[in-house]
Amino acid sequence: MAQVIADRRDVDFVLHEQLHVEELSKHEKFAEFNKKTVDMIVTEARNLAIKEILPTQKTGDQEGCKFENGKVTVPESFHRPYKLFKEGEWVAMTDEPEWGGQGMPTVISLAACDYFNGANYAFMMYPGLTYGAAKLLKAFGTEKQKNLCLKKMFTGEWGGTMLLTEPEAGSDVGALTTVAVKNEDGTYSITGNKIFISSGEHDLMENIIHPVLARVEGAPPGTRGISLFLVPKVWINDDGSLGEFNDVVCTGIEEKMGIHGNSTCSLSLGGKGKCRGTLLGEENKGMRAMFLMMNEARLLVGMQGFSCASSSYINALNYARERIQGKNLLLQMSDPNAPSVSIIEHPDVRRQLLTMKAYVEGMRSLLYYVGMCEDKVVVTDDPEEKAMHQSLIEVLTPIAKGYVTDKSFEVCSHGIQVYGGYGYIREYPQEQLLRDCRITMIYEGTNGIQAMDLLGRKLGMDGGKPVMELVGQVQKIIASAKEIAILEDFAVKLEAAVEKLSETGMHIAKTASSFKSLNAFAFAHPFMEAAGDVVVAWMLLWRAVIAAPKLEKLVGSDDRWERKEKAEKNKNAAFYEGQIRSAEFFATAILPITMGKMEAILATNGAVVEIPEASFGG
Amino acid sequence: MAQVIADRRDVDFVLHEQLHVEELSKHEKFAEFNKKTVDMIVTEARNLAIKEILPTQKTGDQEGCKFENGKVTVPESFHRPYKLFKEGEWVAMTDEPEWGGQGMPTVISLAACDYFNGANYAFMMYPGLTYGAAKLLKAFGTEKQKNLCLKKMFTGEWGGTMLLTEPEAGSDVGALTTVAVKNEDGTYSITGNKIFISSGEHDLMENIIHPVLARVEGAPPGTRGISLFLVPKVWINDDGSLGEFNDVVCTGIEEKMGIHGNSTCSLSLGGKGKCRGTLLGEENKGMRAMFLMMNEARLLVGMQGFSCASSSYINALNYARERIQGKNLLLQMSDPNAPSVSIIEHPDVRRQLLTMKAYVEGMRSLLYYVGMCEDKVVVTDDPEEKAMHQSLIEVLTPIAKGYVTDKSFEVCSHGIQVYGGYGYIREYPQEQLLRDCRITMIYEGTNGIQAMDLLGRKLGMDGGKPVMELVGQVQKIIASAKEIAILEDFAVKLEAAVEKLSETGMHIAKTASSFKSLNAFAFAHPFMEAAGDVVVAWMLLWRAVIAAPKLEKLVGSDDRWERKEKAEKNKNAAFYEGQIRSAEFFATAILPITMGKMEAILATNGAVVEIPEASFGG
Repeated sequence: MAQVIADRRDVDFVLHEQLHVEELSKHEKFAEFNKKTVDMIVTEARNLAIKEILPTQKTGDQEGCKFENGKVTVPESFHRPYKLFKEGEWVAMTDEPEWGGQGMPTVISLAACDYFNGANYAFMMYPGLTYGAAKLLKAFGTEKQKNLCLKKMFTGEWGGTMLLTEPEAGSDVGALTTVAVKNEDGTYSITGNKIFISSGEHDLMENIIHPVLARVEGAPPGTRGISLFLVPKVWINDDGSLGEFNDVVCTGIEEKMGIHGNSTCSLSLGGKGKCRGTLLGEENKGMRAMFLMMNEARLLVGMQGFSCASSSYINALNYARERIQGKNLLLQMSDPNAPSVSIIEHPDVRRQLLTMKAYVEGMRSLLYYVGMCEDKVVVTDDPEEKAMHQSLIEVLTPIAKGYVTDKSFEVCSHGIQVYGGYGYIREYPQEQLLRDCRITMIYEGTNGIQAMDLLGRKLGMDGGKPVMELVGQVQKIIASAKEIAILEDFAVKLEAAVEKLSETGMHIAKTASSFKSLNAFAFAHPFMEAAGDVVVAWMLLWRAVIAAPKLEKLVGSDDRWERKEKAEKNKNAAFYEGQIRSAEFFATAILPITMGKMEAILATNGAVVEIPEASFGG
Repeated sequence: MAQVIADRRDVDFVLHEQLHVEELSKHEKFAEFNKKTVDMIVTEARNLAIKEILPTQKTGDQEGCKFENGKVTVPESFHRPYKLFKEGEWVAMTDEPEWGGQGMPTVISLAACDYFNGANYAFMMYPGLTYGAAKLLKAFGTEKQKNLCLKKMFTGEWGGTMLLTEPEAGSDVGALTTVAVKNEDGTYSITGNKIFISSGEHDLMENIIHPVLARVEGAPPGTRGISLFLVPKVWINDDGSLGEFNDVVCTGIEEKMGIHGNSTCSLSLGGKGKCRGTLLGEENKGMRAMFLMMNEARLLVGMQGFSCASSSYINALNYARERIQGKNLLLQMSDPNAPSVSIIEHPDVRRQLLTMKAYVEGMRSLLYYVGMCEDKVVVTDDPEEKAMHQSLIEVLTPIAKGYVTDKSFEVCSHGIQVYGGYGYIREYPQEQLLRDCRITMIYEGTNGIQAMDLLGRKLGMDGGKPVMELVGQVQKIIASAKEIAILEDFAVKLEAAVEKLSETGMHIAKTASSFKSLNAFAFAHPFMEAAGDVVVAWMLLWRAVIAAPKLEKLVGSDDRWERKEKAEKNKNAAFYEGQIRSAEFFATAILPITMGKMEAILATNGAVVEIPEASFGG
C-alpha cells in the first residue's frame, strides 16, 4: 500500500475539535483563515508532501550530498519538489504577504509542517533554515537590508543559515572567536571558522544569506560581546543584483548518522581577508537577538523530531495490520492448527503501537497548542491574556523541544521493533526515521540544555507564574473529565500527578537556589521528563474529554464492549474510542512510572555530583 | 588518545573479586585456569582486540560487504585479524581441545568476548555464527558428521551459520516451508528460500556449513514437523576433502542500519534441484535441538549488545574528560570570567555518565554471572546445586538478552548525547555503536519474545522455583549489605523492590493463566524491564558489598568527603568508591521508577487488548 504520513483525521481533530483554530479568523489579521481555507491548506500541504517530497526521502538518504572543490550538490531528486515548494509559497507561511509570506496562523503552518517534515525533513531543512534566518532579518534588519534580501528569502529564491557553532564553541556560544572588524564603508570584515552549518552550502538556490555570530574587535568576553552579521554567499549590489562571490568557503561536509540529504558544512570566513558582512541589529546584542528567535526555532525542532515519530507510527500500524505472523495467543492454546494472524493481534505489538499512538497524539496536541498560544499572543489585545499565553509558551517550549525529541526517538525505536528484522534494513523507512530523528535531541540546544532552561529559567520566571498557568490549564481539563464517568478515574490519576509535579517543581527549584544547586541540576533532565509526561497526559485527557460525549452520541452507551463493537463499524466512533483508550493507557500504564520519576527527583540524591571524577573508571 | 574498549579494572573486578572464577580451577575440568592463566587470556584477548580488530570497526562499517554474482566479499581489512583470531584459537574457547577448542570456562570466554565484540562485533559474527553452528553439530551430529566438520569449524577454517528465517516465517518458526526429501543414499534434497542469514556467504573461509531448518515431506504442521539438516556450501567427500559446490546460492545481501561488516544473506537452496544435506539429530526434532542451544545463543547476543554499550561508555567518559566547553555552574554565578571546564563537570553530563556506568557495570556482572552459572552446572556433582544454577540460567537468560540489549541501546544513545554534535557524525565511533547495537534487540528472538518467555515459561517453571532461587540470591546480598552502614539504605530500597517484584510476578503469572491472559501478556515487556532493573540493582549492591570493606581499609573512614578526597589520589580507592556510588545512584534514582513500573503492571489495565483495531487510526 502507498506510504502515508500523518493521520489526517488526527490532524483535523487537533485543529478543529481540540483547538478550534477557526476562532482565530474572528480577528482581522487572520480573517481569511476560516475552516474551509484551513482544510484546503492542509490538503494542499499533504498532497505536495506525499506526491512530491516523500519519494525523495529514501533517495535523499542514499544519495546524500556531494562535496567537490568547495561546491555542494544536493540529491538530484530534491530540485523538483523544491521548485514546487517555492511556487506554493510554503517557505514563509506565517509571514506578511508583502514580503512573500502567506500570513497564516502558526498553528496551521505547523499542520503543514507535520506533513512536510514527515515526508522528508532533511529536505525541509533548506527552506527551514532559510525561514529562520529571514525571521532574524525581519526582526532586526534595516530597511535597506530587508529590501535587498527579505522577499528573496521568504519566497525561497535565496537560502539562509545560522553560523553559530565553532569547533571550540558548541553549547558554550560565548566562547566563539570569529572576529569582525569595521570598515570605513560601514561594512565589517569577518574572519573565522564555523562548523555544523546546516544547509551551509548547496546548489538549490542562487544565493545564501548567512547570519553570523562574531565578536567585534575589543568587545567584552563571553556572550555579552557577541554581535550578529549578515554575510551573503554572493555580494548583493545596491540595486539588488548579484555581485561577486564573498569570501565564504565551504571546506567540507560532515558524514552523518542521518539527514544525509541536508548538507552539514564547515565554512571558512575571510580566509583571503575578503569576507564582508553588514551588522544585523546592534553591536554586542547578537545573543539577545538569537534568544528572541529561540522559542520558535525550538518548537520547529520539536516538530522535526515529532514528524519522524508520527511517520514511524503510521508505518508501523500499517505494517502490523498487513504482516501475518504467528497465531492468536488465546486460540493457539485450544487449537494448535489455528490460522496465522496479523501481528497487530499480538499483545506486545499492540502495546508498542498504543505506546506510539499515545505519545504521537499527545505530542501533536502539545506542539499545535504552543503554536496556537503564539497566535493568541499576536491577536489578543488583553494584556493579561497575552501574558498568560506568553507564559505558557515559555514553560512549554523546552518540553516541546527536549521532551518531544527524546520521546520521538523512543517512538522511532518502537517503530523499528514492530517491523522485526525488516525494521533494521534500508528497504523499509523505519531505520532511517530513527537515524534522522536522533539529531533533533542535539541541535538547537541539546536536550540537557532544554532541561536546564526549564529548571533554571522557566520554573522561577515571574515568581513561578508560567508554571502556575500551566497547572491551572491542566486542572481545568481535570475538572471537566471528572464530570464524565468513563474518564473520572484517569482524571483522578492526572490530578495526583500534577499535584506531585507542583511539589516536585517547588522542591527542585528551591534546591537549585540552595548550596545543593548542582544536585538539583543533576535532576533537571528527569524533571523535564516528568513534566513532559504530565503535559502529554493532560493533552490526552483533554482529547478524551472532547471525544467522550461525541462517542456517547454515536454509541449511546458507556459499556466498553458496546463501544468496541460500534467502533469496529463506524469510523468516527472508532476514532473517539481511540482517544479514550490513549488517555486510559497513559493514565494507567505510564503515569505510575512518572510518579516514580518524581519520587527520585524529590530524593535529589547527590551521587552524580559527589562521585569523584576518578571513580568513573577508564 | 588511543581508543580503548572495556574497562580492564572492571572486568578483573567481576572475574576475581565478585565471581572468584579461580575457584573453578579446583575442578579437574578447569584445573589449568588459575588466576594467572585467566589474566593472561584476558590480556591476550584485549591486545588482539585493541591492536588488530578495533581498527576494522570503522573501515568495516564504511566499506561494508559487497555482493556480485552470488559471491560476497567482506571488508578487506577483516582478513588479517581473522587470520590472527584463528591462529589464537579463539573460535571455540570453551570447547574440547581435541576438537580444536581451548576448554576454558564460559565466564572467561565472556570476558574475552567483551573485548572482541567491543572492538568490532560485525567482524565477530563470522566466528560467532560458526561457533553456534558447530555447537549444534557437536551436540547432535553423528561421529561421521563430527569427524568431517567439527574441528574445521572450531578452528575457524570453515564457517557456520543458522538457516532459520524465511520471508513468511520470522518469529513464527513453525510457519517455515523449506522442504527436505530423503534420497536413496540417506542424504536429503532440500528446497527453499532463507533470508536474514548472518555470515551466510563470504570470502573469509573456504567452506561454510549451514544448519538448515526444514520440513521433511509429510511431516506434521508447525514446529512439531521441523527437522535440522547440515548443508555445506561445498560438499565434503568422505576423506574430508572438498568436492563440488552444493546448490546453495546467495541471491543478495541486505543493506542495513548497522553491522555493515557482516553479510546478511538471502540464500536459495536447491534452485537447480541439487541441494544436498544430511540430517542432524532426529527427524521432526529440529526445534528441540534449537531450543537446547538457545540459552547460550541468547547470552551471547546479550553480550553483543552490551559490548556496544561498554565501548560507548568508555568513549563518552574519555571524551567528557577531554572536551572543554562551558563553565562550572557554581563558579559561573560568582565569576562570569571563570575558565571553561571539561564537560564532565556539568551535572547533566555526569548524570548521563553515571547512568551509563551503573548499567554497564550491572549488566557486565549479570552476563558474567550467567556464564559462571553455566560453568557451575558443568562442574558441580551435587544435583541440587546443579539444578539451582540451571534455574538461575533459565530465569536470567531472557533478561540477559532482552533487558540487556534494550538498556544497551539506551546507553549507546546517551553515549551519542555526551558527544553533542560530534556524536552524530561518522568521524567518531558513537553513532555506529548505536546502529550496530540496534539489531541485538531483534534477532535471536525479538525482545518481545524474550519477555513472553520470561512471563509465559520461566515464571511458572518448576512451580516458580527459578524465580524463588533468584529472589533468594538477591536477599543474600541484601542481608550482607544491611550489615554495612553506608549501604544499609540502598539495601532497604532493594529489599522493597524485590518484594514488590515477587508480588508483581505472582500477580502477572496468575493473570496470564486466567481469562485475562492477554492483558498479562500486554505487560510482559514492562515486567521484564522491572525484573531487569531489580537484577541490575542486585548486581550493583553485590559489587558495593565487596567494595565497601576494601574501601574502608584504604580510607579508614565512612565520611563521604574523606572518601572522595582519598579516591582522587588512589586508583583502587577510586574504583571502590565508584562501586558504592553506582549502587547509590541506582537505588535512589532508578529504583523509584522501577517501583512505578511495577505499580502499572499490578494495575494490568486492559486498554492495549481492548482497543478496537480500527481505533488505532490510519
